[in-house]
Amino acid sequence: MNDPTTPSAPAAGLEGVVVAESEISYVDGEAGRLVYRGYEIEDLAENSTFEETALLLLDGELPSRESLTAFTERLEAERGLDDEVLDLLHGFAADADPMAALRTAVSAEGMFDPDAGADPLDGEATRRKAIRLIARFPTIVAAFDRLRNGRTPVGPREGLSHAANFLWMLSGEEPDPEAAGILDVALILHAEHGMNASTFSARVTAATLSDLHSAITSAVGTLKGTLHGGANAEVMRMLLEIEKRGTDPETYVDETLDAGKRVMGFGHRVYRTIDPRAPILAEFSRRLGEKSGETKWHAWSERIREAMESRKGLAPNVDFFSASTYHALGIPVDLFTPIFAISRVAGWTAHVEAQYAKNRLIRPRARYVGASGRTWVPFEERR
Amino acid sequence: MNDPTTPSAPAAGLEGVVVAESEISYVDGEAGRLVYRGYEIEDLAENSTFEETALLLLDGELPSRESLTAFTERLEAERGLDDEVLDLLHGFAADADPMAALRTAVSAEGMFDPDAGADPLDGEATRRKAIRLIARFPTIVAAFDRLRNGRTPVGPREGLSHAANFLWMLSGEEPDPEAAGILDVALILHAEHGMNASTFSARVTAATLSDLHSAITSAVGTLKGTLHGGANAEVMRMLLEIEKRGTDPETYVDETLDAGKRVMGFGHRVYRTIDPRAPILAEFSRRLGEKSGETKWHAWSERIREAMESRKGLAPNVDFFSASTYHALGIPVDLFTPIFAISRVAGWTAHVEAQYAKNRLIRPRARYVGASGRTWVPFEERR
Repeated sequence: MNDPTTPSAPAAGLEGVVVAESEISYVDGEAGRLVYRGYEIEDLAENSTFEETALLLLDGELPSRESLTAFTERLEAERGLDDEVLDLLHGFAADADPMAALRTAVSAEGMFDPDAGADPLDGEATRRKAIRLIARFPTIVAAFDRLRNGRTPVGPREGLSHAANFLWMLSGEEPDPEAAGILDVALILHAEHGMNASTFSARVTAATLSDLHSAITSAVGTLKGTLHGGANAEVMRMLLEIEKRGTDPETYVDETLDAGKRVMGFGHRVYRTIDPRAPILAEFSRRLGEKSGETKWHAWSERIREAMESRKGLAPNVDFFSASTYHALGIPVDLFTPIFAISRVAGWTAHVEAQYAKNRLIRPRARYVGASGRTWVPFEERR
Repeated sequence: MNDPTTPSAPAAGLEGVVVAESEISYVDGEAGRLVYRGYEIEDLAENSTFEETALLLLDGELPSRESLTAFTERLEAERGLDDEVLDLLHGFAADADPMAALRTAVSAEGMFDPDAGADPLDGEATRRKAIRLIARFPTIVAAFDRLRNGRTPVGPREGLSHAANFLWMLSGEEPDPEAAGILDVALILHAEHGMNASTFSARVTAATLSDLHSAITSAVGTLKGTLHGGANAEVMRMLLEIEKRGTDPETYVDETLDAGKRVMGFGHRVYRTIDPRAPILAEFSRRLGEKSGETKWHAWSERIREAMESRKGLAPNVDFFSASTYHALGIPVDLFTPIFAISRVAGWTAHVEAQYAKNRLIRPRARYVGASGRTWVPFEERR
């Protein structure tokens, strides 16, 4: 039975379907450009900081010095977790996927936030929640990582940038300025990307007039998947698998493709040519490799890139070189996707604010193709 | 600047946009029919149980006696919470919205589930997770309610139906058979409803190949909003407000509409005429009112229904009479939406299984209408 009220063919992936107008970012898939609020991503990577970029995404304008100082101070002041949330983190499973832990902690934050009971359409309350979430994502990820390793969480330290403070809380050691600078740019690069799946899920949740924490919890869970944020960890697992097998990258690519499997970190729903974030991360991967003397991860990545270009004509996406970059920064593989989240929460909150500002319930249709005309019968009469 | 690659007008609510073919349920908005797997909702309400309906939704067929017995035993065996999750619940905020608590607990379940590390495309592992979640939703809601009231959680009791056991765990008292029967039918009525917002959010999350717990966590957060599952609690708050004001229902409707505000529980994105679930719940509301001698909630509901029909031509939806029904069952107002979730998790899990079976990343587009051609400048040069 077909549903006569929904006759059109299903657009299962919503490819090319426009669900919103947005002033936040422009993904030019043909030209391989990414633009936040009118600024090219290369320009921001060269000149901005994560904090400034986050405020740009939220407010639409590069801030004045005073505004940025105030925002940075707010972030610093909000970095610490409430005791109640920290207590909950102590009860998390040590072997949990860090994205499952982050998802749970973000949801828990929604129970303890001072504005938990506010109307989602109260813009000032929602902004306060947004700042708390942006501030605390790194704290949650670092605390979970330390706790699962039987170590005491390290609290945030004043005077450190968002990126540097994360490295501090993760290791409890003075962060290397170059490492912090590279992570800062990586956070800029991942902060926003149009109507991607996690951002869309945040907007679908927010559009029922659910609260910001619900929306961001949805986004974390959506980012977790290997077809989205989970891909950067999968890229690193591929590089580690190549090392383990003792094969060469070209052979690995051939064998993977011949087996009908996917080589992670290539291609993109929107970019048809280049992902403009990839070359910036490739340069970081190269530079960090040379600095540490461990150049193979970058070299193998470049060889995989060439093999994929020649065999499939596909270019690397943002996930591909972020893997070797984060690995060179000493970050555990399963924290790669949480770092993506630490950055993307800026874009998510900007999108949820935009959703609330011009809300409409997001409620598509399914086309029914199932059974019809059945009647309930007792067990004895069932086939 | 308009994005030339996405020229079409935004479909902000995705109204009428078909995102999937589905064999699970058919919502006939014109005729006011709801069909699960080929069975009319009235037929299932009359003859089935929540357990049988849940298995019907998951498997597509009315089960044999043996299959239903096995499924019911699995549900009973999985009702209890792990100590780790129960410990976490003890640390939840007593004043938290129960939907925020449920969202957090479901997410936490994802850290402790024995199949937490399984590939989402492993259908057997995903089904085991689905059964655990369906089984535990009532346990979580009841335990949170008791804990927030300073009481010890009551564990599940064997030999009780899903609905009766929930009432048992909530009150610690022998459930009234008629109350349990009515709740059982209410659970049938709410179990599935096509590509509604929470179900869609679950599928958007699952479509990145994230796990079932992520998808269901998204759905809980999406259901929480007042434009979706949150509406049934809003209906009851309206009835309580009428009592508090000492006004009559017609005056309340007039004043609310004249102030440009929404009267909750009316109209539906899909149903153009009648929501077939509403009359069934209206009958329960009436019957429970007469039984208890407290008839005003049902009587006022009927008067609001008539006023809304005459003033706006709108019919009540599923949320409208579920309010007075649940209130008559002695359920606290802020548990109305969690009860919706206790039921809908059956449909959610069926939809996530269907999404995995034929997956495609759900990634729409935004049409960029923001600034263009800007260049980063230092503070001194900013306007």
